[in-house]
Amino acid sequence: MPLSMSPADSMWLLAESREHPMHVGGLQLFEPPEGGDAATVRALFDTALSNDTAAQRFRQRATRSWSSLGQWEWEEDRGFDLGYHVRHDALPQPGGMRELLDLCSQLHAAPLDRHRPLWEMHLIEGLNDGRFAVYTKFHHAFADGVSAMRLLARSLSEDPTDRAMPAVWDMANPEPERPAAEEPAAETGDNGGILGLPVAAVRGAATLLEGAAGLGSALAGTVARALREQGGSLSFAAPNTVLNVPIAGARRYAAQSWPIERLRLIAKASDATVNDVVLAMCSGGLRTYLLSQEALPEVPLIAAVPVSLRGGPDESPAGNSFGVLMCNLATHSADPAQRLETVRASMLEGKESLTGKRPSQILAMSAVGMVPAALHVVAGSSGAVRPPFNVVISNVPGPTTPLYWNGARLDGLYPIAFPQDGQALNITCTSSDDAIAFGLTGCRRALPDLDAILGHLDAELQALETAVGI
Amino acid sequence: MPLSMSPADSMWLLAESREHPMHVGGLQLFEPPEGGDAATVRALFDTALSNDTAAQRFRQRATRSWSSLGQWEWEEDRGFDLGYHVRHDALPQPGGMRELLDLCSQLHAAPLDRHRPLWEMHLIEGLNDGRFAVYTKFHHAFADGVSAMRLLARSLSEDPTDRAMPAVWDMANPEPERPAAEEPAAETGDNGGILGLPVAAVRGAATLLEGAAGLGSALAGTVARALREQGGSLSFAAPNTVLNVPIAGARRYAAQSWPIERLRLIAKASDATVNDVVLAMCSGGLRTYLLSQEALPEVPLIAAVPVSLRGGPDESPAGNSFGVLMCNLATHSADPAQRLETVRASMLEGKESLTGKRPSQILAMSAVGMVPAALHVVAGSSGAVRPPFNVVISNVPGPTTPLYWNGARLDGLYPIAFPQDGQALNITCTSSDDAIAFGLTGCRRALPDLDAILGHLDAELQALETAVGI
Repeated sequence: MPLSMSPADSMWLLAESREHPMHVGGLQLFEPPEGGDAATVRALFDTALSNDTAAQRFRQRATRSWSSLGQWEWEEDRGFDLGYHVRHDALPQPGGMRELLDLCSQLHAAPLDRHRPLWEMHLIEGLNDGRFAVYTKFHHAFADGVSAMRLLARSLSEDPTDRAMPAVWDMANPEPERPAAEEPAAETGDNGGILGLPVAAVRGAATLLEGAAGLGSALAGTVARALREQGGSLSFAAPNTVLNVPIAGARRYAAQSWPIERLRLIAKASDATVNDVVLAMCSGGLRTYLLSQEALPEVPLIAAVPVSLRGGPDESPAGNSFGVLMCNLATHSADPAQRLETVRASMLEGKESLTGKRPSQILAMSAVGMVPAALHVVAGSSGAVRPPFNVVISNVPGPTTPLYWNGARLDGLYPIAFPQDGQALNITCTSSDDAIAFGLTGCRRALPDLDAILGHLDAELQALETAVGI
Repeated sequence: MPLSMSPADSMWLLAESREHPMHVGGLQLFEPPEGGDAATVRALFDTALSNDTAAQRFRQRATRSWSSLGQWEWEEDRGFDLGYHVRHDALPQPGGMRELLDLCSQLHAAPLDRHRPLWEMHLIEGLNDGRFAVYTKFHHAFADGVSAMRLLARSLSEDPTDRAMPAVWDMANPEPERPAAEEPAAETGDNGGILGLPVAAVRGAATLLEGAAGLGSALAGTVARALREQGGSLSFAAPNTVLNVPIAGARRYAAQSWPIERLRLIAKASDATVNDVVLAMCSGGLRTYLLSQEALPEVPLIAAVPVSLRGGPDESPAGNSFGVLMCNLATHSADPAQRLETVRASMLEGKESLTGKRPSQILAMSAVGMVPAALHVVAGSSGAVRPPFNVVISNVPGPTTPLYWNGARLDGLYPIAFPQDGQALNITCTSSDDAIAFGLTGCRRALPDLDAILGHLDAELQALETAVGI
């Protein structure tokens, strides 16, 4: 008996096209268990594969037919073929991060097969540092950002001695309930909860994606009202840039981690938050990138930034109250310290503008930034219509305790989002106790030199340290 | 200035869908140059890549617009990005043929990006025997089977000491003219010609593909007439089988070579041709496969077999006169010798029925088998309508002299075709002086155990040897 699919979920199937595959991904890096090597991890996965079982949800595919009146439904894939969904891949020489990111770019560009359950997992070997990578792809109709991150996290354990753990596709109850607003604190407690992932922050990013891709004209009135009521956080206009163009099907993915302590020290020295420093790094990185492309606008770039409204952005959000702020990145300024200061002031102003607003108002205000692509691209990028913002920058708290899969330690977790028409670059960070990971997903054609931004981010981090006297 | 595209070529873009990507592929295996290893070959390709140049045709993409009234055209891709088209891949452990074929299956299932020139080349390292593989994909609108095979062959040399050879994408004149009927013998001479590839045989397979995928209802009348006039080669009906079903997007590719001398000895001992032995191997292989699936029909499977009409099927076809015969595979019989004898008689009868016919008649007769998918699938596979044949089996002569790319010896060349609705399996062989390579391209869903057919082919070869007393 097929299960009907919610309209929100089927939207992702309807809106999808060859150039705009609507799937989210995750790249995980694992250290082999103590005394083992990459082959040990491979053997663990092969054992999981050889069980040839999968939880119900992972065996369901999306269908629609005359009998369902064209509505999408989930039904058991009677030809379910685990070996199709879980694959082995390897890196060419020299097997470094560059090769890994190239492979992820390729894998992330390929659309999922709609005849089958809408997920894939790739076990990637051949890293020259002895680690093992896992790239996972979920269609947004199968799992939004929340579910995807939680699914991945739920398959891990805080106990390095745990063994006989099932793979993510074979967990007895792989679908966590979407937590309600009045969810008990135990589930969403201080920066962790039982999954080591704060729910609200992750959901913030997911809802941002939903809003960004799916906001229809029906919301236009709400948005217009919100614009009239808006505070200072929306009072500047974003310039046209090379990031705000129609996109093609190929992707570039780049990712790198830095010790979070370096950002903490900069934040402390400048009365800013770690999130401000993340944004300042992006500002400097994008400025250098646009300069290298001879495409830096005279007016500053505007970032759309999802923030938690309970506690500061560096504290752990424990509720589900969040908003999206427009942040002035001050990319017109050549001075790193001034860029950081502008970002800090812009974020403060934005957060103040949201204080005291009703949730519905906040949602509507947040949605303002989320009508990007359609309006901008439909109107053409002639310069007559400006994009509402230039780039989405999310900072999603990641696990705060070490997590293991059958003794293999999770060493890095990078979300992979999708660019859209008018928003050719997405920056998503995950921060943990000791590191902050930047994941940049872009249209390969619009961002011919995306990899270079990683170097620019690193240079900006050093420049900020110098600027604050570290 | 865009160049208009021929209607025949644009058909491949129009007919394409997510489940039916219309590209052909080739898998080449290279031995490293003397004294070198796989890293040497990799370095050669990297040098070619670093030139960052490509011939005009490889820089053109297909477009259509209002100004072209919706017609497809070729235009220079101003954002041409060689690194997108030429990629590095690697095999997971243990790096055997199974891993190579798995990777090719994945690569061959992915659609080409229509925003870019319609080709890809993947340099595959990590083979455990020290070799290096190259998988190439051309959209059928870019290059049909003829052009694709010739392009690949033209980039090679018979001289192992040749160096500084350009890559296939960078050859000064990469587009050989499609040879006319009165082409000089030097070009298409005895099983070789200057390219080591007999043109007519290759074109036979290509035209077969064209016919199979593209024959529209306009040809129905011709086909009906041909059916009325047909000889014995079309007097039996193909059964419904698990091979004759609608297909999905994923692919399985399997390939293996055998010493051609083994087939020659069987042919000699049974007064058959090598091509008959190829068909008998397929017969036994498919029989065992269908038995294992509990899906062997009571009546024999029918294969569509393109043959040259000048000389015997084992001789080198030197003209462009070819046809497609329907061959009784005698899969109902448990006796290998009887299957070979039926195949031999069926092929003889078919060839006789074509003798003395006008080319237009032959073409029409050949086209009969090429209306497969549409008619069969539209009518449903209820059993009321039978497929015109069950499987296409082509045997394309390959290079007869050793060929080299910058000293790296071409060690194997396997064509990769595409299955279609109603024809979920395609078997294409290339024969050279010393080996015959079988390439099986199938729909992953319809052929859950395609790899096993390789073992069945091997068993059948042994059974035939036993049957003829070798």
